[in-house]
Amino acid sequence: MENKSNDIYGRSRVKNTDELDKYYSDLQSMDTGALWTVANDIEPWEPHTISAPMFWDYEKLRPYVLEAARLVTPGEAGRRVVYLQNKNRIKEKAAVGWLYAGVQITQPGEFTPAHRHVAAALRFIMEGSKGYTIVDGNKIDLEARDFVITPNGVWHEHGVAKDGETCIWMDGLDIPLANALEANDYGVLAEETGGQEEVVPRNYSPNRYSEAGVIPMDKKWDKPYSPMFRYPWKTTQKALQNMAKVSEPCEFDGYLMRYSNPLTGGHPMQTMGASMQMLPPKMHTKAHKHTGSFMFQVAMGKGAVIINGKRYDFKEKDMFCIPSWLYHEFVNTSETEELYLFNFNDLPTIEKLDYYQEKEHPEGHQKITS
Amino acid sequence: MENKSNDIYGRSRVKNTDELDKYYSDLQSMDTGALWTVANDIEPWEPHTISAPMFWDYEKLRPYVLEAARLVTPGEAGRRVVYLQNKNRIKEKAAVGWLYAGVQITQPGEFTPAHRHVAAALRFIMEGSKGYTIVDGNKIDLEARDFVITPNGVWHEHGVAKDGETCIWMDGLDIPLANALEANDYGVLAEETGGQEEVVPRNYSPNRYSEAGVIPMDKKWDKPYSPMFRYPWKTTQKALQNMAKVSEPCEFDGYLMRYSNPLTGGHPMQTMGASMQMLPPKMHTKAHKHTGSFMFQVAMGKGAVIINGKRYDFKEKDMFCIPSWLYHEFVNTSETEELYLFNFNDLPTIEKLDYYQEKEHPEGHQKITS
Amino acid sequence: MENKSNDIYGRSRVKNTDELDKYYSDLQSMDTGALWTVANDIEPWEPHTISAPMFWDYEKLRPYVLEAARLVTPGEAGRRVVYLQNKNRIKEKAAVGWLYAGVQITQPGEFTPAHRHVAAALRFIMEGSKGYTIVDGNKIDLEARDFVITPNGVWHEHGVAKDGETCIWMDGLDIPLANALEANDYGVLAEETGGQEEVVPRNYSPNRYSEAGVIPMDKKWDKPYSPMFRYPWKTTQKALQNMAKVSEPCEFDGYLMRYSNPLTGGHPMQTMGASMQMLPPKMHTKAHKHTGSFMFQVAMGKGAVIINGKRYDFKEKDMFCIPSWLYHEFVNTSETEELYLFNFNDLPTIEKLDYYQEKEHPEGHQKITS
Amino acid sequence: MENKSNDIYGRSRVKNTDELDKYYSDLQSMDTGALWTVANDIEPWEPHTISAPMFWDYEKLRPYVLEAARLVTPGEAGRRVVYLQNKNRIKEKAAVGWLYAGVQITQPGEFTPAHRHVAAALRFIMEGSKGYTIVDGNKIDLEARDFVITPNGVWHEHGVAKDGETCIWMDGLDIPLANALEANDYGVLAEETGGQEEVVPRNYSPNRYSEAGVIPMDKKWDKPYSPMFRYPWKTTQKALQNMAKVSEPCEFDGYLMRYSNPLTGGHPMQTMGASMQMLPPKMHTKAHKHTGSFMFQVAMGKGAVIINGKRYDFKEKDMFCIPSWLYHEFVNTSETEELYLFNFNDLPTIEKLDYYQEKEHPEGHQKITS
Repeated sequence: MENKSNDIYGRSRVKNTDELDKYYSDLQSMDTGALWTVANDIEPWEPHTISAPMFWDYEKLRPYVLEAARLVTPGEAGRRVVYLQNKNRIKEKAAVGWLYAGVQITQPGEFTPAHRHVAAALRFIMEGSKGYTIVDGNKIDLEARDFVITPNGVWHEHGVAKDGETCIWMDGLDIPLANALEANDYGVLAEETGGQEEVVPRNYSPNRYSEAGVIPMDKKWDKPYSPMFRYPWKTTQKALQNMAKVSEPCEFDGYLMRYSNPLTGGHPMQTMGASMQMLPPKMHTKAHKHTGSFMFQVAMGKGAVIINGKRYDFKEKDMFCIPSWLYHEFVNTSETEELYLFNFNDLPTIEKLDYYQEKEHPEGHQKITS
Repeated sequence: MENKSNDIYGRSRVKNTDELDKYYSDLQSMDTGALWTVANDIEPWEPHTISAPMFWDYEKLRPYVLEAARLVTPGEAGRRVVYLQNKNRIKEKAAVGWLYAGVQITQPGEFTPAHRHVAAALRFIMEGSKGYTIVDGNKIDLEARDFVITPNGVWHEHGVAKDGETCIWMDGLDIPLANALEANDYGVLAEETGGQEEVVPRNYSPNRYSEAGVIPMDKKWDKPYSPMFRYPWKTTQKALQNMAKVSEPCEFDGYLMRYSNPLTGGHPMQTMGASMQMLPPKMHTKAHKHTGSFMFQVAMGKGAVIINGKRYDFKEKDMFCIPSWLYHEFVNTSETEELYLFNFNDLPTIEKLDYYQEKEHPEGHQKITS
Repeated sequence: MENKSNDIYGRSRVKNTDELDKYYSDLQSMDTGALWTVANDIEPWEPHTISAPMFWDYEKLRPYVLEAARLVTPGEAGRRVVYLQNKNRIKEKAAVGWLYAGVQITQPGEFTPAHRHVAAALRFIMEGSKGYTIVDGNKIDLEARDFVITPNGVWHEHGVAKDGETCIWMDGLDIPLANALEANDYGVLAEETGGQEEVVPRNYSPNRYSEAGVIPMDKKWDKPYSPMFRYPWKTTQKALQNMAKVSEPCEFDGYLMRYSNPLTGGHPMQTMGASMQMLPPKMHTKAHKHTGSFMFQVAMGKGAVIINGKRYDFKEKDMFCIPSWLYHEFVNTSETEELYLFNFNDLPTIEKLDYYQEKEHPEGHQKITS
Repeated sequence: MENKSNDIYGRSRVKNTDELDKYYSDLQSMDTGALWTVANDIEPWEPHTISAPMFWDYEKLRPYVLEAARLVTPGEAGRRVVYLQNKNRIKEKAAVGWLYAGVQITQPGEFTPAHRHVAAALRFIMEGSKGYTIVDGNKIDLEARDFVITPNGVWHEHGVAKDGETCIWMDGLDIPLANALEANDYGVLAEETGGQEEVVPRNYSPNRYSEAGVIPMDKKWDKPYSPMFRYPWKTTQKALQNMAKVSEPCEFDGYLMRYSNPLTGGHPMQTMGASMQMLPPKMHTKAHKHTGSFMFQVAMGKGAVIINGKRYDFKEKDMFCIPSWLYHEFVNTSETEELYLFNFNDLPTIEKLDYYQEKEHPEGHQKITS
């Protein structure tokens, strides 16, 4: 369907004339236009992405992230973050589609001001120790490869204990989406010294939702997001390995698990989702494409991704994006080790709006063109 | 909150230095940036709209719509539509926010090619007689002020009977949204002569969902949109008048009713909603603002709308838009007649993403500034 | 499956012995038993109903209903109701399954005390004029063949205006179900003179939900039952006639419409549902059976029902029940007039518990055996 | 409210007369009755339970369970189960309310015939080793104190490996409810040797849903019950202990967790639920009552329950029931060990029908009367 001609019945095929030019000019003066002059553009045969596939080499990026912590203070900057810029989404400050991604650094003893926004936020922990987040008055300890949510509109702040080690994590937000839909806002809790009051014991949320299939019955939860704020790496990895004991890998994604709200089975937040996938040693998946924008980080292992005919080789902590409706396939280049890929995405949005479509590559794999 | 300073703790307040400039330049070369250089922009204190309030005078526009039918054929143009162009959304071809609006003309004996798209479409009938739509094989007769849906992904086409009168209607689509989320597509059913086969008797849908509170039990409906494709003006007006017999008008909206899917109570389509509101004679509503983008048409009566401090006086069939988070209030300038305003909007999207907020004007009414 | 033998592997086939008898006796003394002695009974091959099909001739019943009004006062009796007693459900006071049905009389100027109960209640108006109900502070006028709900736990009372005519209606309640599930309760609002305060204008609910596909937006409704308390006969009949213009009748039920909550599309109340069906002149439906208990009243016309091989001829206002899993078929014996049958049922309960099954009669029609 | 008089306005207070007696007799002959003669009985002031509180001492019961295995074979008996008989629910074969409970024995090498029924079933493992269940083609290993489901209508069978030890478990079913609602049925898969084919690897379900908050994405699940068929004791206990680290115990239930469907957060099956609760050493809860029927087993520890003023001391594996709307409170009599109580219940049914109510004991604790 991609290359279908526009020169057929049902598509706009109007030829220009002087009379039409005059007509178009009149329309323009009234803040109007003729649909047939733009119809083929705004009604493409297939979904059309603006974003470019992009790859960020963490080894090159890391020194600059460290430098940020030297150059500015949390008090001046709010957060010390190097954000990832899709070269086709500069105005939107998006890493891919309507998703923002950044790499944040926090040094021992530092913390960010408490704030909130309509946009959803999440974190994937990359390095360091004794980092913590405070979400809605819940102080939660963070470890490498944990996935942590900061839902839409909820007060949050982060820091590292004085005796911890410098923490670096990937932030994901849908600020571009919330701005595009003209709904984003911002609030600061208190000035200078302030922050949230801790309203429950430390690690309250993780301790109440620690095992599959059992739900605490002492409190009602009426929020539209998950009460499980941290999804530990340890259990996520174990879940994937257990799944692999009894299931064949999916031909497009290997073993793929979605982070979920244990009270609904839905996505942890209203607008952004996240997944972890595992490719067994040597697996090379088949290519497909689907709607939705995806920002990846290599959680563990090494391999490659081929997006729209271009191959990107990666190692742990590298980051890349897969834009909507571009063919992609994954490779675990190790003969012995599992490959784990974390991603966050806009699937909750895409699914709620009934915009999800997918399509297998007709030949199974892409031809590598660059 | 609107005018809150950025010179406080929790906002980005980094002063430029040569060292930072060098740093920023390095970041840029790696497709990255420093969050603190853009944070205050992408995290506004309150929702921020790009769209301008706009007003389209139907009397001025109508001759150009008629002219379109003379200038191009359905076979060449697909549809003869003058679209409404928000002056701040030219690239997106949007009338407001991510909504497209156009005024379509069809002459007796003409019909459009059958087509479909992921974007949702709707129509509000303005003038003419013996118009019809065929949605998913259902041929439905249309009358003035009827509201008609063409849900996401469903085959549709329209026409006017040979013995009818030229029909003009407003089209509403969320093509800009479906494109922005990189999910839109397009299909043409058949070439030249073709169109959909009628799979059910004429006016099947309207006759099966003709009265409140009763649902046919002979067929299962498993689609994500309403089985009631046409919402007649006659019953809509009566419903509002009945409501007015027993209820006080809402101080912001008069009597406001939402078109709904009788099988779920939800919006008729997945991404776009529509409402009809009635202001009794002389009513002047209070001002408020909320998220969501709204495209209006004056269905009956005359009056004015004040948006963001500017007053627009209107008469029947005029069209205007209210962008997200701008204060607005309505006036029925008649001493004796009811005023009816139709609107379509992106509320299903805004609500599903949990982006809805509203705020009353602190002084009840806006000061008129232009 | 009905007549399947129990003498097969997988069914209990234990033969009695003296040793077993002794064992059974020991078990009994400990408030226990051996499953295999009862398994075939409590695990029947197919659903098994206890209720008998029953028929109540309104002509014979009516004088006794009138007599009730002479014999006792509302103050003494609460309500003057002749209840319908299934001969196999005497202890439960059920007309069929776990449903209670009664015929209530109210004379001009009389009213019942305001009360409420966990059990759901509904009414189908049979005769009289200027009757009213007050549900949750809503006073609503009733006309013949209207269907009216009194949801679970809501205050309600009924009466007839002083200048009205004696009203008779059928009451339906699931008191037996609420008692069986040990959940029913009862409350009286006030003594002697008292009743509910009217909190909204008369006929508030019917005027706000008067037309299909439009919903008032001025108030939030957060109750688990329908905000539309009365379903008028006039619109119900019209809806069925409209449906008949464009649809073939269902071979088992003719034209069947379910009363629904316009805000959800679900049943009007949590535990009981109701439907109206229309058989065109001369239609004789095919036989099927399904789970769920149904209490019918002939709303208009004449005909017959054949239940479990027995034929019952009926005329307007006669009442009958169809128990769970008995074959049944309907006949309109008129050559010219439509037949309308009202029923109420426990389908919301059956559906929520996932207990619905149905089965066509293998030969299309039953053999009449009595 | 319990002891409220019936001699008030709004209750039935009709005195008998000869004329009324004659009237009642006439009504009876027409399969009808006068509501006011039964109204106060069928509309109690508060929920009224029929079931008695009951206690079953496992030490006394166990020899009879073992004896069952000697007396009858699986081929003859289907299943060797000693069922628990509430003394007020003999006809219904219920342990409490509409719930059946039994204690089943299976010896090494034995297995039950594969069968299914509309009624839901569950198991709580009491003793033995190498027991297994096969649910819908999934063979799953069972260990002591695991909770296992056999959802409504699904094929199932159980057995013990040849090198295992005799297994004993509690069965819970809502056969009485499915029969009461005239919806139950029964099917046997195959004769003599037969059983289900294993359609997935052993322990497929437990390995795919092994950790909280992550869901496999390779298969769609469209069933109305949980895909997690086994809820292991090991993780359930750990979850309760984690919850206790950060939460105060509920004053009525200690630490209470509900088994849930990880895809929906709802109950694992459509009609029956189950919970595990933990009381810390020495805890004595406050008394309350609520609707719903509950069948308990002491999973670990010792203590007492006081139901309706009567105290029952218990040790591990003892079983008891708490009928609807009877006051109850729990005691952990150990100074050092945690007490774990497993229960299954009809809460999904009670909640779906909107029948849940609760009430605290006005004095905090019951007076012990026997």
